[in-house]
Amino acid sequence: MTSCAILGCAGYTGQETLDRVLAHPELHAVALGSESLAGKPGWALDPRLDGSLPRFTRNAEAAESGADVIFLCLDHAEAAAFEPPSGAVVVDLSGAHRLNDDAVAERWYGVTPGAWSYGLPELYPPQGPLVANPGCYATATLLALGPLAGFIGSAVVDAKSGVSGAGKTLKPSSHAGSVLENFAPYAVGAHRHAPEIGQQLGFPVCFVPHLLPVRRGLLATCYVKTDADARALLEAAYADSHVVRVLPEGVAPELARVQGTDAAEIAVFHDEATATAIVISALDNLGKGAAGQAIQNANVVLGLDETAGLRLHGVLV
Amino acid sequence: MTSCAILGCAGYTGQETLDRVLAHPELHAVALGSESLAGKPGWALDPRLDGSLPRFTRNAEAAESGADVIFLCLDHAEAAAFEPPSGAVVVDLSGAHRLNDDAVAERWYGVTPGAWSYGLPELYPPQGPLVANPGCYATATLLALGPLAGFIGSAVVDAKSGVSGAGKTLKPSSHAGSVLENFAPYAVGAHRHAPEIGQQLGFPVCFVPHLLPVRRGLLATCYVKTDADARALLEAAYADSHVVRVLPEGVAPELARVQGTDAAEIAVFHDEATATAIVISALDNLGKGAAGQAIQNANVVLGLDETAGLRLHGVLV
Amino acid sequence: MTSCAILGCAGYTGQETLDRVLAHPELHAVALGSESLAGKPGWALDPRLDGSLPRFTRNAEAAESGADVIFLCLDHAEAAAFEPPSGAVVVDLSGAHRLNDDAVAERWYGVTPGAWSYGLPELYPPQGPLVANPGCYATATLLALGPLAGFIGSAVVDAKSGVSGAGKTLKPSSHAGSVLENFAPYAVGAHRHAPEIGQQLGFPVCFVPHLLPVRRGLLATCYVKTDADARALLEAAYADSHVVRVLPEGVAPELARVQGTDAAEIAVFHDEATATAIVISALDNLGKGAAGQAIQNANVVLGLDETAGLRLHGVLV
Amino acid sequence: MTSCAILGCAGYTGQETLDRVLAHPELHAVALGSESLAGKPGWALDPRLDGSLPRFTRNAEAAESGADVIFLCLDHAEAAAFEPPSGAVVVDLSGAHRLNDDAVAERWYGVTPGAWSYGLPELYPPQGPLVANPGCYATATLLALGPLAGFIGSAVVDAKSGVSGAGKTLKPSSHAGSVLENFAPYAVGAHRHAPEIGQQLGFPVCFVPHLLPVRRGLLATCYVKTDADARALLEAAYADSHVVRVLPEGVAPELARVQGTDAAEIAVFHDEATATAIVISALDNLGKGAAGQAIQNANVVLGLDETAGLRLHGVLV
Repeated sequence: MTSCAILGCAGYTGQETLDRVLAHPELHAVALGSESLAGKPGWALDPRLDGSLPRFTRNAEAAESGADVIFLCLDHAEAAAFEPPSGAVVVDLSGAHRLNDDAVAERWYGVTPGAWSYGLPELYPPQGPLVANPGCYATATLLALGPLAGFIGSAVVDAKSGVSGAGKTLKPSSHAGSVLENFAPYAVGAHRHAPEIGQQLGFPVCFVPHLLPVRRGLLATCYVKTDADARALLEAAYADSHVVRVLPEGVAPELARVQGTDAAEIAVFHDEATATAIVISALDNLGKGAAGQAIQNANVVLGLDETAGLRLHGVLV
Repeated sequence: MTSCAILGCAGYTGQETLDRVLAHPELHAVALGSESLAGKPGWALDPRLDGSLPRFTRNAEAAESGADVIFLCLDHAEAAAFEPPSGAVVVDLSGAHRLNDDAVAERWYGVTPGAWSYGLPELYPPQGPLVANPGCYATATLLALGPLAGFIGSAVVDAKSGVSGAGKTLKPSSHAGSVLENFAPYAVGAHRHAPEIGQQLGFPVCFVPHLLPVRRGLLATCYVKTDADARALLEAAYADSHVVRVLPEGVAPELARVQGTDAAEIAVFHDEATATAIVISALDNLGKGAAGQAIQNANVVLGLDETAGLRLHGVLV
Repeated sequence: MTSCAILGCAGYTGQETLDRVLAHPELHAVALGSESLAGKPGWALDPRLDGSLPRFTRNAEAAESGADVIFLCLDHAEAAAFEPPSGAVVVDLSGAHRLNDDAVAERWYGVTPGAWSYGLPELYPPQGPLVANPGCYATATLLALGPLAGFIGSAVVDAKSGVSGAGKTLKPSSHAGSVLENFAPYAVGAHRHAPEIGQQLGFPVCFVPHLLPVRRGLLATCYVKTDADARALLEAAYADSHVVRVLPEGVAPELARVQGTDAAEIAVFHDEATATAIVISALDNLGKGAAGQAIQNANVVLGLDETAGLRLHGVLV
Repeated sequence: MTSCAILGCAGYTGQETLDRVLAHPELHAVALGSESLAGKPGWALDPRLDGSLPRFTRNAEAAESGADVIFLCLDHAEAAAFEPPSGAVVVDLSGAHRLNDDAVAERWYGVTPGAWSYGLPELYPPQGPLVANPGCYATATLLALGPLAGFIGSAVVDAKSGVSGAGKTLKPSSHAGSVLENFAPYAVGAHRHAPEIGQQLGFPVCFVPHLLPVRRGLLATCYVKTDADARALLEAAYADSHVVRVLPEGVAPELARVQGTDAAEIAVFHDEATATAIVISALDNLGKGAAGQAIQNANVVLGLDETAGLRLHGVLV
């Protein structure tokens, strides 16, 4: 067994990382950090958690637990300030280490990223023990466009996410009275997942996120001009994947099929009138878009089965 | 024209009170108080508001505007501390002045209510210029059970409200991630609208509120034992009302027909197997359950048409 | 007073047209057609409707009522088969008469359109008594891009609509079990509002609609390349409009502010990294996207105040 | 391995039964019946299903597959007409065989039930190979009140269900335009789960169901008068259960924690003012309320681990 610690365990990504660890055949949790729950047992977080879990501690204490793997489910500034223990595998679910150009990272996150490697296993496998876990929007977009990157030079990415993507922190835009029976774009032309996507693709994209009145799930509709056979490139890229599924011709992705899972769906359409390829991806922002991918990255670095611990099958309704 | 001031104008009840004032043929707003928006123009609250409105001020300043009518859309403690200007009509939308037993008021709100009169125009018309506007759950329950009060001695009230009933203040229970695709009871056997209902009916009720994943609307399902003809009593009580509609036999209330309005719907059913009368009421928690009723109370005290300024007709879909 | 008849009054667009007629100072309903409700009184459609309305009749009978204005809230085939009475103003809310190229109309609707004029008052005022009322997606897109049409040659239009846009007819895709907590694109590259948009703009657009888990409301995010000052063009186009509001810089449209109304909101953003103008419009698919615009078109043809009968102000929460 | 057939596999309960069978260590599907999908492969139902499944057949053919276990996910009339093959275990998820009084069954379902046994494993274990699987509302109510039945003589049951409880069949009340941002009671005092509950408890209950704007999940709030220690009785009844969890004092059930699972939650509260015990249960109407319980019943009859194949743990957010 491999020991692990989760820092920031009471937030959405922390809870979901814990969820995957509990089902993981090789990982076992030895330390759960949470500033708000320190000293309390697992069921203080959720009545479904039982007494077999270690009690919550302060994050600093969890960081020094000597765990083989540490999952950072902290905010950007806290993650940037974290000093990895020698020898540990660390997966950072925040944005602190995703941008590898210091000036760009400074502008969008106010941090200097350092020597972490970006880890999106299907396309950009992690290169060492310090892994920057991609953003949820970036994951959906890169899964859709990464395999086509050599054949396109620009893209419009219109993305829509459920509210859990914005985290558990209380803010007016996440108040249910603002979200229910509503829909709106936000951070138009100014979202920090845009430079992350651009960094990986090699060219900037026009990216607009929107907030959906759903709890979880994210869908990105990507518009590109290309002479390449987009479907063939995508099918080849994911032929062996148990995580990413390219849908049959004519079938569109939908949130309901990926919610609560670590899987992703991709569809390819062609608009004749404007000679545009439309690549659409769907995933759960907390699954493949966060905790599921973090576990997958840890599995890759540790040499375990890449899908160990993942939730790959949601209910059929 | 009658001048009015709204204190706490940036909260849900404040916004909705302003909405009704803007459509009112006799009231015009001379002061809009808001601690967060003081100094800003109307469109800082909502881009639909134009430059004809007075700028927001601090609440204390709005209170001293000399307005004929003051609407208090403040929290309980602030409303309890408010000193009514001599001669003004004041409608308090908080709970501070609803309970007329000092000990009970102290227990539930931590305040001493003083000489305000409870104002639910159809059943308990306001008796003077200082009006305690009923709670949303209390309004729905009293509309259903008030006309039967002399014929029953107890009731089970199972109530369900949209999230705007909990106000705009940020709290974990109003976070969209907790509300969407979810449903749960809260404050079971411990909600402060229960003593308010009991005070008006003359006997205690067993009251359980639940949080619905909708933005607005409230439905109360009330179970009583009675030998009286509940339908006849209710139809008689609301025969002349333009606000409360007793539905035809077999038709159930639904939120969609009252959302965005100041109207209420009531239905009566009989359960043969257990000889129980089931009286169900629906209203918009921000309409008849708050701002609409506040305007209605002001109209009554001022001697205006009781429905002036009210939104009585929602869209037909 | 001007008499009017509504055919297909029990569908969503029929109900909403009736709603606007009831509030209209000049129009009064003399005939309400509905195959399913023929012979029944108004409250068979909705308990809020009272006895002052004419009883429902078959559509054919309503068509022969001699009304000055006829609103066709029928499906495409029924509307195509309708023969306008001489002298009547007819507004067709279906798609039957929107496409003026016979071959295109035949392909998308299976009909030959004939001599109707397209009526979107702000941009393409109706030219005679037979008016083709635009599609909801087309209205949102054209409001956003129409004023820029001379300065752009292509556009990506990513649109999202609430479920009432698909009508009241029962189909698996409108079943609440498919819609709730879900989100998906549909008819990708194959929606009949695309040729309608192309016809009015003069060039094809890449159009993808998505189904939102909301009852009503539609938002279109439009991506264009242009050297023109998009904001200046849009502000000039709608400077005198009481229906379309161009939002201040930095403010994004949202469904909540237009739901239940006949108003529309438009915002303009600029994405520096890709030199793209992003124009976003929001409206209620049943309001400005259907019934509201139908009333507006009738007002224009009849020489009445263009906004008579419209719902221009929604609640403030 | 034990072979099984699912009849009516394309409906909600059929899909969910298939879902549990796919994860079951002992059951394997040899026949999948569906009138609408006969002849098609698994992915015609859902793109997540792969080629290892048997093709769909007509229900009659699936019934004759010789499977050891047959799950009937049919409507009441079809299930009533089904003739169980000799030696097979049959679990009927419809209501056809739940009521054991012929006159009552005839009144509510138009059928004569015959020799089936009611199967709710925790309280009323199945007594033979022909099992009537309880209704979703009945399951939630019986889990809450069954352990108290000897100590109470009446109950008010106010229940709320997500829309999947009404099945996949298209009807106006399940249209998303009627369900979204709405809430209403239905079948007040006239729902066929009421006699089912009464049959098992030994006295009639006053039962009112309501339709929630959520995809799945059901919550029943039960009001009873009793001198017994309700909490102690419930904790004793479920002390060994891996399916039903009695929550700690003060914690209320919520849909989010049981959605997508076969688990149930129960809470007990006491209303001092009216001396009422309030017992609240939550489950997933398609899980413990249908397919999960069907699998559990089959496990019991077959002598397998009672929880084999069940989904007991949902995601933690």
